[in-house]
Amino acid sequence: MKIAVCQINTTVGDFDGNVEKILLYLDKARKAGCALALFPELTLTGYPPRDLLDRFSFFEKSRKALEKVAQAAQGILAVVGTVLENRDPGNPLFNCAVAVENGAILQVYKKVLLPNYDVFDEARYFAPAPKPEPPFSYKGLKIALTICEDIWNVEGVFTRRLYAKDPVEEIAKSKPDLVLNLSASPFHYAKLSVRQALLKDVSRKTKAPVLYCNLVGGDDELVFDGCSMAMDAAGNLFELGKAFEEDFFVYDTEKPSLKEAAPAGGEIENIYRALVLGTRDYVRKCGFEKVLIGLSGGIDSSLVAAIACEALGPQNVLGVTMPSPFSSRGSIEDSRQLAEALGMEFKEIPITPIFEKSLETLEPAFQGLARDLAEENLQARLRGLILMALSNKFNRLVLSTGNKSELSVGYCTLYGDMCGGLAVISDVPKVMVYQLSRHVNRKEPIIPEAVFTKPPSAELRPNQTDQDSLPPYETLDAILRLYIEENQPPLKIVKAGFDAQLVGEVLGKVNRNEYKRRQMAPGLKVTGKAFGMGRRVPIAQKFKEEP
Amino acid sequence: MKIAVCQINTTVGDFDGNVEKILLYLDKARKAGCALALFPELTLTGYPPRDLLDRFSFFEKSRKALEKVAQAAQGILAVVGTVLENRDPGNPLFNCAVAVENGAILQVYKKVLLPNYDVFDEARYFAPAPKPEPPFSYKGLKIALTICEDIWNVEGVFTRRLYAKDPVEEIAKSKPDLVLNLSASPFHYAKLSVRQALLKDVSRKTKAPVLYCNLVGGDDELVFDGCSMAMDAAGNLFELGKAFEEDFFVYDTEKPSLKEAAPAGGEIENIYRALVLGTRDYVRKCGFEKVLIGLSGGIDSSLVAAIACEALGPQNVLGVTMPSPFSSRGSIEDSRQLAEALGMEFKEIPITPIFEKSLETLEPAFQGLARDLAEENLQARLRGLILMALSNKFNRLVLSTGNKSELSVGYCTLYGDMCGGLAVISDVPKVMVYQLSRHVNRKEPIIPEAVFTKPPSAELRPNQTDQDSLPPYETLDAILRLYIEENQPPLKIVKAGFDAQLVGEVLGKVNRNEYKRRQMAPGLKVTGKAFGMGRRVPIAQKFKEEP
Repeated sequence: MKIAVCQINTTVGDFDGNVEKILLYLDKARKAGCALALFPELTLTGYPPRDLLDRFSFFEKSRKALEKVAQAAQGILAVVGTVLENRDPGNPLFNCAVAVENGAILQVYKKVLLPNYDVFDEARYFAPAPKPEPPFSYKGLKIALTICEDIWNVEGVFTRRLYAKDPVEEIAKSKPDLVLNLSASPFHYAKLSVRQALLKDVSRKTKAPVLYCNLVGGDDELVFDGCSMAMDAAGNLFELGKAFEEDFFVYDTEKPSLKEAAPAGGEIENIYRALVLGTRDYVRKCGFEKVLIGLSGGIDSSLVAAIACEALGPQNVLGVTMPSPFSSRGSIEDSRQLAEALGMEFKEIPITPIFEKSLETLEPAFQGLARDLAEENLQARLRGLILMALSNKFNRLVLSTGNKSELSVGYCTLYGDMCGGLAVISDVPKVMVYQLSRHVNRKEPIIPEAVFTKPPSAELRPNQTDQDSLPPYETLDAILRLYIEENQPPLKIVKAGFDAQLVGEVLGKVNRNEYKRRQMAPGLKVTGKAFGMGRRVPIAQKFKEEP
Repeated sequence: MKIAVCQINTTVGDFDGNVEKILLYLDKARKAGCALALFPELTLTGYPPRDLLDRFSFFEKSRKALEKVAQAAQGILAVVGTVLENRDPGNPLFNCAVAVENGAILQVYKKVLLPNYDVFDEARYFAPAPKPEPPFSYKGLKIALTICEDIWNVEGVFTRRLYAKDPVEEIAKSKPDLVLNLSASPFHYAKLSVRQALLKDVSRKTKAPVLYCNLVGGDDELVFDGCSMAMDAAGNLFELGKAFEEDFFVYDTEKPSLKEAAPAGGEIENIYRALVLGTRDYVRKCGFEKVLIGLSGGIDSSLVAAIACEALGPQNVLGVTMPSPFSSRGSIEDSRQLAEALGMEFKEIPITPIFEKSLETLEPAFQGLARDLAEENLQARLRGLILMALSNKFNRLVLSTGNKSELSVGYCTLYGDMCGGLAVISDVPKVMVYQLSRHVNRKEPIIPEAVFTKPPSAELRPNQTDQDSLPPYETLDAILRLYIEENQPPLKIVKAGFDAQLVGEVLGKVNRNEYKRRQMAPGLKVTGKAFGMGRRVPIAQKFKEEP
């Protein structure tokens, strides 16, 4: 039997658009002689629908969408993800895989394991099935359905076993000929190899080929990377779907032809592509065409500009440099040169006159007190003001340019450089910002060399550099990674080779600045732990961690 | 047996502070001749600790705190809430009630039902106990422990039954002499009567007296109202703890003396007190002394100023009026008069000069385009800029003053009037803002009468009023209530008596403005559904609801 794996980019709540796309791929599958077409998790609703699931009309639309797909699946079995009603006590919906053909439902599978950690909230909406539905027969094959997390309860994947039951073991008992998995598994940079190991485990346990169809596309903070897979019963990888693009491939159960899988991109390349896709989809799915970026002449805004130009085309990107009395001439020139190299529109709007007028206005209230952070933040906020004014006037979405290192320790201004609809690199530590920028320059010099070599500076007072307030970024990023991504206790971080006082200071800064991050724009997740939905820390609290 | 109900105000992560308070109340209980002292849910950690629960050192500190309480509980049984480790598959912690005396643990009870809807995320952290622990014996009484949600699975309380099992029925089988419940049940305006009905149900089913100890205090978005209760086996209410304050009362199982419960406050009074407590605790638990409010001369900022003065004392509140070319003289005078009536500090800082300089700066970029929303937002953002500059300079927390009606439909400026550390009335619809303001004036005129009578206006262009863009607030609030709080489908809202086109427009505005609310300050929840943690809607999505 020929099976089509349809790795599509859905949009949350866009039932018409999602159905249209499914129908297109069903046609493609039929033309390729396939008897079955497999789609990603929650194909009809998009993923993650979050509290839209509470709306009755959302459920109603999903029902109608399923009917349309069932009607269109003439002579081909479409396996799509959607929600179905739970009539028993518990949450009102099931997260389902439904196999439909010729207007009828052949099989319903309800997700057993509901992820409810990090960015996932599935126990908020769904009732878990008590056990996996047994395989169903189709054209002489016993086909087992599974959904995403159902195949993830494998020892060694997580530091602790999250679920007592393993649906894969249950399914293995029924000796399926084929295992299908519908997934919406978001990207982070170390995930691809984990998924392959996982699928190997499934094929080993069930002694059956496994077809894995993963969602592709950006949805708010999450970027789904695709990379769907076909694996035979022996755990050989037959096909690997494209990363960060829609894709379609066919697996023939009778004569699987082992294809050389396209070499996976390097870590930095993958992160870059995730950011490009995440930016493109956020902007487009929000209904915007054009974006706007404040260019400081530093590495962060240079990288974001490059990502935006690749995501949306340079004709849709406007860079604005907003010099203050403390901006170096070099910074303005570096910004201009970057904009030229990228082919994007460029404007220079100095903030000095408004800055001076603001100081004058505030003078009576400031009572002759010495300049401090207030005047520094003021400049950052005036830049935010200009960007937002241009955003309102020309309907351009502002992309904010703060990196994870500075957001972690609060080296950023709320309502200033934090302004924007999307925080493109809010999950990218500063050292990785440099690596990604080198990747931008891999073929030709785009980001001016001076941007790499000059010491990072907010340029909010004379001769300021980031390292006046922060440890070297290599040190800071390493501490932050141990603390935020790896969730290590302070003592372990110190034991990894860092000064105890420094560790205490950094952790203290992270905790004191939760209030800023609570008001940040959604940011694209590319590491194992990003700020936003996946990290929920109270603000008004007094927990202190010291080594 | 005499039992003390200790309704205390804990702080998340403040193990030392929480233990100190527990010890104080243990002393009080001992002096009152009590054999048992009951505390609220998660007494040691504070509620809700959220992702702090992922930190190993948080768990470690909770263990040490429990030891201290156990040691201090000499000759008295302390029943406190804390987390304990789960060594089986599943989430790593249990949400527990622990009874300790003379340094030893007498009983551990693990929460069975874990709320994971609205503002609750307990399935993210805790493993559920499979069934309630049977009662334990203490001084001849069979005492059953329960935690919050465990007694909430009663038909008729929720529109659907969320859990298959009912721990109360299970407990009833073991015929306890006494049922204790440790709670952290947040306030919303219709909740008190629900809780009383619930406790009646528990006493009816178990045929035992029920002692209910609820948390009091503000923790980020949530305000816990206290209102602890003692009910006899017949469902008579014996004691009702104070609302919105710490409290302590004693219930004697042998000779319960029926006290006249203090009359519950009216709905508006309760909401007002919730906002006062929520504001006080947010400001104090964040480590601030003083706050800052932009006074527009309108009803919203007047109400917030009154709340702040009651919460923190007028000496800690600064009001700033920031007139623009479109501000009426009346607005400035109303603000000044309000500040005088409240006894708070007052400043006038005009934004006109910076506004003009900003327009001048933007002129080349704006290319002679007509004035529109961009210039209106600019004024709101300049006010935000001034407030934040004062906040930075004088270490004052900014309280933002937007109401729920305008936040719902996006009639507010991101980084403008939305600036602030706490959105005091973000869950208060405009009509209720007027009611609360009348409550402020109940004894003497505080908010000038003109503020009630003039038509609401943002004063961002000549002769603007809110009703240029919005339906009358009575209509808007009614539609929003049906949509957001009651989660009604559009057709039902129309059937409730509203114009279909208007309903479509309002719902469209709510959905299009999700991006603004994502970046709003935490706001105090006082209704059944508030923006923030309890309402998680994607931004980049295309779901449309029309009647």
